[in-house]
Amino acid sequence: MDSSVLKFSDIVSARSTLRGVAKNTTLLHSKSFSRMADANIYLKLENMQTTGAFKVRGAYNKLANLSQEEREKGVVAASAGNHAQGVAFSATKLGMQSTIFMPIFTPPLKVLATKGYGANVVLMGDSFDDAFAGSQEYAKEHNATYIHPFNDPLIIAGQGTIGLEVYEQIPDVDAIIVPIGGGGLIAGIAMAIKEMNPKVKVIGVNAAGAASMVGSLKANEIITLPSVSTIADGIAVKTPGNLTFDLVQKYVDDVVTVTDTEIAHTAYLMLQRAKILAEPAGVTSVAAALFKKANLKGMNVVPVVSGGNINMQILEQIIEKGMVEEGLRACIRVIIPDQSGELKKILSIFEGLKVNIYDINHERSSSSVEVGKTLLTIKMNLQNKEQLKTIINMLKEYGLRCEIVS
Amino acid sequence: MDSSVLKFSDIVSARSTLRGVAKNTTLLHSKSFSRMADANIYLKLENMQTTGAFKVRGAYNKLANLSQEEREKGVVAASAGNHAQGVAFSATKLGMQSTIFMPIFTPPLKVLATKGYGANVVLMGDSFDDAFAGSQEYAKEHNATYIHPFNDPLIIAGQGTIGLEVYEQIPDVDAIIVPIGGGGLIAGIAMAIKEMNPKVKVIGVNAAGAASMVGSLKANEIITLPSVSTIADGIAVKTPGNLTFDLVQKYVDDVVTVTDTEIAHTAYLMLQRAKILAEPAGVTSVAAALFKKANLKGMNVVPVVSGGNINMQILEQIIEKGMVEEGLRACIRVIIPDQSGELKKILSIFEGLKVNIYDINHERSSSSVEVGKTLLTIKMNLQNKEQLKTIINMLKEYGLRCEIVS
Repeated sequence: MDSSVLKFSDIVSARSTLRGVAKNTTLLHSKSFSRMADANIYLKLENMQTTGAFKVRGAYNKLANLSQEEREKGVVAASAGNHAQGVAFSATKLGMQSTIFMPIFTPPLKVLATKGYGANVVLMGDSFDDAFAGSQEYAKEHNATYIHPFNDPLIIAGQGTIGLEVYEQIPDVDAIIVPIGGGGLIAGIAMAIKEMNPKVKVIGVNAAGAASMVGSLKANEIITLPSVSTIADGIAVKTPGNLTFDLVQKYVDDVVTVTDTEIAHTAYLMLQRAKILAEPAGVTSVAAALFKKANLKGMNVVPVVSGGNINMQILEQIIEKGMVEEGLRACIRVIIPDQSGELKKILSIFEGLKVNIYDINHERSSSSVEVGKTLLTIKMNLQNKEQLKTIINMLKEYGLRCEIVS
Repeated sequence: MDSSVLKFSDIVSARSTLRGVAKNTTLLHSKSFSRMADANIYLKLENMQTTGAFKVRGAYNKLANLSQEEREKGVVAASAGNHAQGVAFSATKLGMQSTIFMPIFTPPLKVLATKGYGANVVLMGDSFDDAFAGSQEYAKEHNATYIHPFNDPLIIAGQGTIGLEVYEQIPDVDAIIVPIGGGGLIAGIAMAIKEMNPKVKVIGVNAAGAASMVGSLKANEIITLPSVSTIADGIAVKTPGNLTFDLVQKYVDDVVTVTDTEIAHTAYLMLQRAKILAEPAGVTSVAAALFKKANLKGMNVVPVVSGGNINMQILEQIIEKGMVEEGLRACIRVIIPDQSGELKKILSIFEGLKVNIYDINHERSSSSVEVGKTLLTIKMNLQNKEQLKTIINMLKEYGLRCEIVS
């Protein structure tokens, strides 16, 4: 199968197929992000798509095109994420049986959501590869159709409908930025956009810890990464597809990378400035704009925010890290004399500055603490960046040794 | 001044005035919330409004209608919240000087944002009343125009533009739910909606800990609460205005209350299901629908999500509480023999269930612990609700005493 099997008209057909199923998601202008990126930033909010991610577009388009016989045998997929929910939702909507193989460690909310959409969920193995093997075996045994997450023309055509929508929502778009895992999303969008207007730039984004598309483009052939490591689990893909790779080579202007630190900070800013919750993979496109990975100065730029299904525990860490980076939370260690009244002296510094203590730890037995002293570890919420310096200076004036932990 | 000074045409005029300044915010259908509320829920996303809240509508409309002489003298306001940002943004946009009095304890991000919009910020006093007194004095001294946060016909007319937008976005709306602090938002929206279609229900929401509008309606006259206490700081108002009270009496069908627990849980669900960050005051309208405070069965219902400016520390607490309520986080205490290997035995239970320990505390000196025993406090991330029961049962089978803290 080569990429010439996909035609622009397939994307237009997909749009009809998706009517009433997938939302035409909001395109939201963000003043804050425009200022930061030095461009006009319009966010395409696929995190607010049905099932919380763009994946439903491709999945529904694929399933709606199965033959009556295939429909009766049902579909099977392997996914720990948004593809699972997209397939489950689409199958139920079309009256088909779906079976989704997920690794045992899959976050419970994703399992629940997938079951909630009507799928038969099979938890198998410690890794995605085990779940994938299970899904293949199941497909053979039951004559069920295996639904690939990205390397399929009908899946790509479904994702491409985002390109049609964006072009209608902002006809003077100059650039569109798209997260890349396997490449299905960008392959579809790039074809849609470039066939309509080749002048619009299409920029892809890999997570730095899973840059399989960047590597493949450099090598001029598909490569497989030995391992991937990124908080953007939705795009942690070791090997791009051959269809998607061909289309990226043909239509995409550039593929850049963003680091986990950039991704996490962007997710924080999305919340704090734009009031939008997105998953790490979903904000890589925004991160590329904010951290100026491409020259977009003055342009009308549409980062596709591909999904919003984030684990609440990861969200907590992103907020915590964001607050530390903004100087609104800090942790210091200070050694004080182990005497009554000494702790109070320290606390009065905090009170005077209206700094709120979040956590405090008082330790005598550490080997780094001399007899007669005690080590305080203080986590605090600050009013602004400058307060930390003020606190450190005041502690030093008291003759106390202290250091900043974070 | 009585409420007859406000005419429907003032709201229509405000709409022209606001063109290009305030956004026509998205109306977002939510499947999850519709299912939970047993109605068709469409969220009106004023949390994504310029400045992060609806307040800019009223403020800009008011300022744009000042005389040339008034404009030259500048404006003054007292606010620890969204009104401050609305006035600051509008004044700068119209080339006026604005001075905003804020209590000293105001969250730093709100101070920074207000300064960022070009205001002269004066931090004064420990309470809002002090800041308010300061603003009055300043207004007199400088002949500046004091901008009331809600009891002003032009402010009310500006907020009312939301009603016009909603009616265009969903002409078959059956009910609209609006948070109430001082009452400016609901007064404007209710007038707009009822003048267009008296059949549309308008429902107001007070925070249970600041139910001054509910109390005033019951008393049939404006009452002042001795104190207010709610996480919904944006609507923690002791006394409604006389204009707003009149309009609520005239146009509003019902005013209900929601508790802080309901508000916090709704804010969590807004994030987790709808991928939207909103402030506690802003989700009271959604909470009223989810917790069925009014009979909305099968109706097309629009909760106005009034703002999104939430303190990140409060957000952390909301997420933590939400996870505990969903059974995804728990804290237990267990007493174990103080011997090598005992802790490991406990931890192997967790490992077997793939439960992740978030925090662990090991205490010998508590008076409730016998000699030879030690008290473990374990905070954990769970896969689902059932796991906590399984863990407790397994610990009991080992003959250990344990209790659930949260």
